Amino acid sequence: MIQIATCREDALALDLADPLAAARGQFAIPTGTAYLVGHSLGPQPMAARHKAEAAMDAWQRDLVRGWNTAGWIDLADRTGARIARLIGAGAGNVTVTDNVSVNLFKLAAAALSLCRTPVIAIEEDEFPTDQYIAAEIGQQFGLDVCRAAPGEGFAALGTGGVLIKSAVNYRSAEVTDIAAHEEEARRHGAVIVWDLSHATGVLALSLEADGALMATGCTYKYLNGGPGAPAFVYIAQDIARRVISPLPGWMGHKAPFAFDSIYEPREGAARFASGTPPILSLAALDGALDVFDGLHMSALQAKAEALGALAIARAGALGLDVRSPAEGRRRGGHVSLRINDGYPVVQALAAQGVLADFRAPDTVRFGFSPLFLTYAQVWDAMEALGEILRSGSWDRPEFHRREKVT
Amino acid sequence: MIQIATCREDALALDLADPLAAARGQFAIPTGTAYLVGHSLGPQPMAARHKAEAAMDAWQRDLVRGWNTAGWIDLADRTGARIARLIGAGAGNVTVTDNVSVNLFKLAAAALSLCRTPVIAIEEDEFPTDQYIAAEIGQQFGLDVCRAAPGEGFAALGTGGVLIKSAVNYRSAEVTDIAAHEEEARRHGAVIVWDLSHATGVLALSLEADGALMATGCTYKYLNGGPGAPAFVYIAQDIARRVISPLPGWMGHKAPFAFDSIYEPREGAARFASGTPPILSLAALDGALDVFDGLHMSALQAKAEALGALAIARAGALGLDVRSPAEGRRRGGHVSLRINDGYPVVQALAAQGVLADFRAPDTVRFGFSPLFLTYAQVWDAMEALGEILRSGSWDRPEFHRREKVT
Repeated sequence: MIQIATCREDALALDLADPLAAARGQFAIPTGTAYLVGHSLGPQPMAARHKAEAAMDAWQRDLVRGWNTAGWIDLADRTGARIARLIGAGAGNVTVTDNVSVNLFKLAAAALSLCRTPVIAIEEDEFPTDQYIAAEIGQQFGLDVCRAAPGEGFAALGTGGVLIKSAVNYRSAEVTDIAAHEEEARRHGAVIVWDLSHATGVLALSLEADGALMATGCTYKYLNGGPGAPAFVYIAQDIARRVISPLPGWMGHKAPFAFDSIYEPREGAARFASGTPPILSLAALDGALDVFDGLHMSALQAKAEALGALAIARAGALGLDVRSPAEGRRRGGHVSLRINDGYPVVQALAAQGVLADFRAPDTVRFGFSPLFLTYAQVWDAMEALGEILRSGSWDRPEFHRREKVT
Repeated sequence: MIQIATCREDALALDLADPLAAARGQFAIPTGTAYLVGHSLGPQPMAARHKAEAAMDAWQRDLVRGWNTAGWIDLADRTGARIARLIGAGAGNVTVTDNVSVNLFKLAAAALSLCRTPVIAIEEDEFPTDQYIAAEIGQQFGLDVCRAAPGEGFAALGTGGVLIKSAVNYRSAEVTDIAAHEEEARRHGAVIVWDLSHATGVLALSLEADGALMATGCTYKYLNGGPGAPAFVYIAQDIARRVISPLPGWMGHKAPFAFDSIYEPREGAARFASGTPPILSLAALDGALDVFDGLHMSALQAKAEALGALAIARAGALGLDVRSPAEGRRRGGHVSLRINDGYPVVQALAAQGVLADFRAPDTVRFGFSPLFLTYAQVWDAMEALGEILRSGSWDRPEFHRREKVT
């Protein structure tokens, strides 16, 4: 059951009862800001800054010895183990490495040795990088590329090939049933490489229980790891032994400091490491994960769902077209609304301290990171949206001015 | 002509006349430390810390808008342009992306479309990651892999394939003649992918004048970008148009925020970008490059050469076996000495504030970063080494204790 506020007092009451309320104090968010873009770049947890500062202290003080004294040498694995808990995986089955584009390549190329037929499939509404990587792997390995219609990826599993699939669609926030997909994949000898970018840190994922074999995801959205924080790789234990990364860098070697000429991969997900990881960014991510300590993802998902439901209810009252699933279990952490002139509307909201984002041609996304948002903020944000639309105040020249990144 | 100190007073006189002396004040190096490991991890430039802090300020204050307000969106290209000046390349021909392992893969795989025959060659004493990537590309693309003996890479160009080659060998510091290699490559339709990790920031490279087509290098050694700072890619202008990255991530797309399904690469080196770059680490690198502003690489190379010559002269006086070229123009920024029990000797040096590094089984490397070292420090370091060897003080239990990273 979800309680949906029908007045501001209701929202305040939900905030008072919020079991995650204490997490908010761990973020450094400018006052007067309702930050509804945590699905794009999470705000700064204080601990992220502290750990990045500590890494800089260690670099200054210990110089190259920091690899030992500050534990940089296994920081990617330790950080991976912390993410593992949040996605329902064992500690050794996740490591932090590279970015999502590179990891999709590594995993999908490695998956070719596991699947029944040489086909790579991708839905047409997937995030662009996923589509580019799928197309390029097809080209490079001489495979048929199956460009499935939105939602038709499940049917494509019948080919027994490799499917790259987001657990939460970046535009609609539609959630994919991982367990059902994996069951179908097993039946046909297909392999799914999951992109968990819009799912990690907001959904209560259970990768191992759902039989997932391979996944990657970014860490700068709901994990709040900082701009361009490195991504993670998940690989099921029995699968890790059977594959080798197509990008075998020295940090994935069993004994990197033996300087062997022959590549011998490490055990578990760590074999998908490539070169030296960006320690300052990685340390910030490690700090960002402190906020999740002691919390269960089910509580985060429940609050994100409730915040989203509140926004959908208010959008309905405003007569807006909602492009995300109404049913909470089928919806990720954000809600997309169709709004003509969405770009200046988003700018007008920003002028009032309500940050949302716009995806051309007419989608406005509101992200509901459960760790730092309040019900009252969501209530107020939707009130502000209603007022902007009613008054037409979005149609001022300054709100139409385009920035490089929208 | 190189002046070599024969007493400590000579060394002090050289320091007084050092045109790079002012750069030293821009680094935060613990007092009492002679840091001879700049070839592994450069020390912290104050500006690196300042720019990383500024990136964290922008993240906190501007949140996702930092991509515009703090210029993160083109920071990789702007930082690449600054590195371009240091390696003799045009601004648009260098970008910062990924790590060396990933970039070697991208470049060598892309080079296959340019070379005459499907062969990939690598020398057996190259850095391990280079060897792993070469072997894997051979496997993935069904190519012959030519494992050339040390120094025989030049001959391998006759096959008309792709050669991965370091400009400075990580162990011996031997410098490769880039122009001569490129001339031979052109004659045979071969393509060289240069690994500039041990050359960038210490040698006066002239990639474009030398006819180099493709290169990558790390930025945490002589560029002092910080632990795991992202690497760079260089690609000659006329070559960039003819190749596509085998890892086409959205940040290499002409219009990443158009969210197109079809990949259209950007112009120049930027087409070799993949996913979102790690901004905190990238910002630190950008700051580290401030130290190079207004300096010419020829001055840096001259000083590194002179410091190395001093070390070699003193090593000779100690009767040590020098494994790096005696001739300055053939030697990179470090000098390798063969020392039995090199590991505890390095620990004994460290106990006196002289940091060097050890590469099994018996190589001790002394790095001569010209921006922060003094002639007197090198003099004193070699005196300390002599005293440790003469007295046998290295043979204490505490100096034999192994750390994870040696």
